[in-house]
Amino acid sequence: MIPVVLSGGSGTRLWPVSRASYPKPFNRLFDEPLLAVTLRRLAPLGSPWVVGVAGTEAPTRALLRAAGVPVEQAVFEPVGRNTAPAVALACHLFLLAGRGDEVAGVFPADHLIADEEGFRRAVRLAGKCAERGQVVTLGIRPTFASTGYGYIEAGDELFARDGDGKGSFAAYRTRGFREKPDGATAQRFLAAGSFLWNAGMFIFRVAVMADCLARFMPELWRRVREIAADRSNLAEVYPTLPAESLDYGVMEHLDAQVTIPCDLGWSDVGSWDEVARLDAAAGRRRGTVFAEGAGDNFVFPYGDKVYGLVGVDGLLVVDTADALLVARRGAAQGVKRLVEQIERAGRREASEHVFEERPWGGFEVLRDTERFKSKLIRVDPKQRLSYQSHRRRSEHWVVVRGRPEVTLDGEVRSLAPGDTIFIPTGAKHRVANPGDEPVEIVEVQLGDYFGEDDIVRYEDDYERG
Amino acid sequence: MIPVVLSGGSGTRLWPVSRASYPKPFNRLFDEPLLAVTLRRLAPLGSPWVVGVAGTEAPTRALLRAAGVPVEQAVFEPVGRNTAPAVALACHLFLLAGRGDEVAGVFPADHLIADEEGFRRAVRLAGKCAERGQVVTLGIRPTFASTGYGYIEAGDELFARDGDGKGSFAAYRTRGFREKPDGATAQRFLAAGSFLWNAGMFIFRVAVMADCLARFMPELWRRVREIAADRSNLAEVYPTLPAESLDYGVMEHLDAQVTIPCDLGWSDVGSWDEVARLDAAAGRRRGTVFAEGAGDNFVFPYGDKVYGLVGVDGLLVVDTADALLVARRGAAQGVKRLVEQIERAGRREASEHVFEERPWGGFEVLRDTERFKSKLIRVDPKQRLSYQSHRRRSEHWVVVRGRPEVTLDGEVRSLAPGDTIFIPTGAKHRVANPGDEPVEIVEVQLGDYFGEDDIVRYEDDYERG
Repeated sequence: MIPVVLSGGSGTRLWPVSRASYPKPFNRLFDEPLLAVTLRRLAPLGSPWVVGVAGTEAPTRALLRAAGVPVEQAVFEPVGRNTAPAVALACHLFLLAGRGDEVAGVFPADHLIADEEGFRRAVRLAGKCAERGQVVTLGIRPTFASTGYGYIEAGDELFARDGDGKGSFAAYRTRGFREKPDGATAQRFLAAGSFLWNAGMFIFRVAVMADCLARFMPELWRRVREIAADRSNLAEVYPTLPAESLDYGVMEHLDAQVTIPCDLGWSDVGSWDEVARLDAAAGRRRGTVFAEGAGDNFVFPYGDKVYGLVGVDGLLVVDTADALLVARRGAAQGVKRLVEQIERAGRREASEHVFEERPWGGFEVLRDTERFKSKLIRVDPKQRLSYQSHRRRSEHWVVVRGRPEVTLDGEVRSLAPGDTIFIPTGAKHRVANPGDEPVEIVEVQLGDYFGEDDIVRYEDDYERG
Repeated sequence: MIPVVLSGGSGTRLWPVSRASYPKPFNRLFDEPLLAVTLRRLAPLGSPWVVGVAGTEAPTRALLRAAGVPVEQAVFEPVGRNTAPAVALACHLFLLAGRGDEVAGVFPADHLIADEEGFRRAVRLAGKCAERGQVVTLGIRPTFASTGYGYIEAGDELFARDGDGKGSFAAYRTRGFREKPDGATAQRFLAAGSFLWNAGMFIFRVAVMADCLARFMPELWRRVREIAADRSNLAEVYPTLPAESLDYGVMEHLDAQVTIPCDLGWSDVGSWDEVARLDAAAGRRRGTVFAEGAGDNFVFPYGDKVYGLVGVDGLLVVDTADALLVARRGAAQGVKRLVEQIERAGRREASEHVFEERPWGGFEVLRDTERFKSKLIRVDPKQRLSYQSHRRRSEHWVVVRGRPEVTLDGEVRSLAPGDTIFIPTGAKHRVANPGDEPVEIVEVQLGDYFGEDDIVRYEDDYERG
């Protein structure tokens, strides 16, 4: 089976930790980034592919490398276009590779599943149905009358089972998809017992989904073929595709489908309310929090900062270096609107962090003033920055970790912790990390302009202009 | 007149902005530090003295210099001992200087007074009464039935007036001092109209207060004389003095006293609730705050960080580099207990900031890790650090502002922005700022220990060990 991870969302409901430049699949909301957890959960089923979005190439590839997955198995949409174009692109790529008869499964990058073994058994059962030509969805048994999810109605059982008794899975005919219901309808769905949450997990034979897409979204399917056949079309054609979900574009039109009801400890980690609920369920405590007449508050700390709460309850407090959120529990919808407001005000904090991940590592801004800018730069093992120069700033580097190899105007030297080097304005320079340990450098820039766009690249391992 | 500013409180109710190492009189709660505002308010009355507390020498002297007041007019208690020992020390110093017949006034360093001109007229009227031998208090006309202040009861008018009609001040016989009342009593005080808030502002002839102290606190008075006569006794004797207020130790025992009721737009800036009230009254808006279904919240921002509030109201949010407070309005008492809790947990954030003010300038920690520590160091004009060395760290300095003069193992060199210098472990070094502009240096320390106590001093302008 070919697991396909859809990793294109921006997760603004988890602002300020999740921002477009470094969104939810990459954030350490728990011990590990959700995408890393997703890749590990899927690995026993097959070598996964990732459909990501532009701007997340560096952290995606880093997580793929860590998971032992070839980085070529990631493709990046220039802009997010919902799930139908992403699935169409994956299907075309698999068809071109002659894998049309294989079973593929589509999974969101940023959900949590407590029962991973159960999940894989359910997917394998789905795979068996998919081999017979069926399009299969995993449906999550609702635990409350949610109005935030779409629903799948299950019909008759199909006599395809994974074992017997408690914990076994069975396949049902799908009676239909239902959009997010109102409260009363959600209550009715819950009471009926035959309605399941649609968690966006689909399993199908590639050729079958290709037929569906060609039949129900012919224009999309044709235009994605241009991209798959010649990826140089990606940047131009992809943004013109309709932003449509696979559910709406394909699944709702299918007559014969299969649903496998699941009880997996699933969470979409869709809001800070949900993170707080998962913390409470796991007895997880974060950071250094002192309370005086305060209780039932959730704090997502920044570093080892101290948090003091006095006389407050039911709050979500989420801190980062450059932005803080204080929200009332249950107010998740407001966070999305808040970020839209911050975006409209033109503040970079809506979508960017003070740290940036790059193909070669990353950096964090320590101080940015009119006179100077200081950064902590990390170069990952076996990576190197482009050969570059700056027009309006000089740079002092102090190596604080690892053994970098610095090229300065053609001359190469090896440095160790404690060594410094001065990069005059206009000098060509590059830093490489030939070692197995990360390199860390404190940089002090001096000049009259410190923008990231003051860079002339002469050579680049990552083909950037 | 000799204005005496009492600047010894720690202001823990304004944590995390106010901490023992850099307390309320020095914080920029509004445009300027409260001590700076207090010094300017008093300057037209006479050249002020300051009784401060150990650890605040550097910022106190900096504010005195800025106000054109000789730094010798500041004395520092080794530990805070409430107001009676501080006033006794000041009186002894004035007696020794032969100023026993002059009028002195005692004023807290950290209160706000909107009507500064009215304040000075009231003090001058008090001065006239004091010349006649009376001990005078300024009493604040209550604006609500506060249970947080002591009260002064005014008796008969004394026919000492400052002009006539609206805005004029008149002196009254003091009928007595009342400790903080319960709610019902406070209501009765407010209704009676003759009760005033005790704001700790006392005006008296030095010799008169000396007599009072000698009479009502003879032991204290005697022991403070030892200190005033020989300041080398300060560190040993002062901490053994009783921590008692002038109100309790002297004022409450006096029969003949004068009170001047005042309506000055006074505030003790005693809590975040009060800062929020002052902000609202002044229409002051702070920082970059976005709200979604949120209102009536107060945010005290850290730098240019972005704040997002969703579905919350009535909150006080106070942010700093290393500690955040979220409190419900009206919960001021809890903040004091919260800080006690943080103190008990042994966290430095209870009493220290990530920045430190020193006699020569100050520094801020940019990053503190196991491998390295980076600071931004500021050396004020005409100041220099001690000649020193470190046992367990080397230092790289990058000058980012000003023209420092660096001595390294006896050799002196002048540096400019962009210049760097390396201080090996064990090397004797010092930095001086001979110029008129502040010097700023980014420092990167490497070693295995970065504590402030790893310092050997060979020479110091500020007589530190």
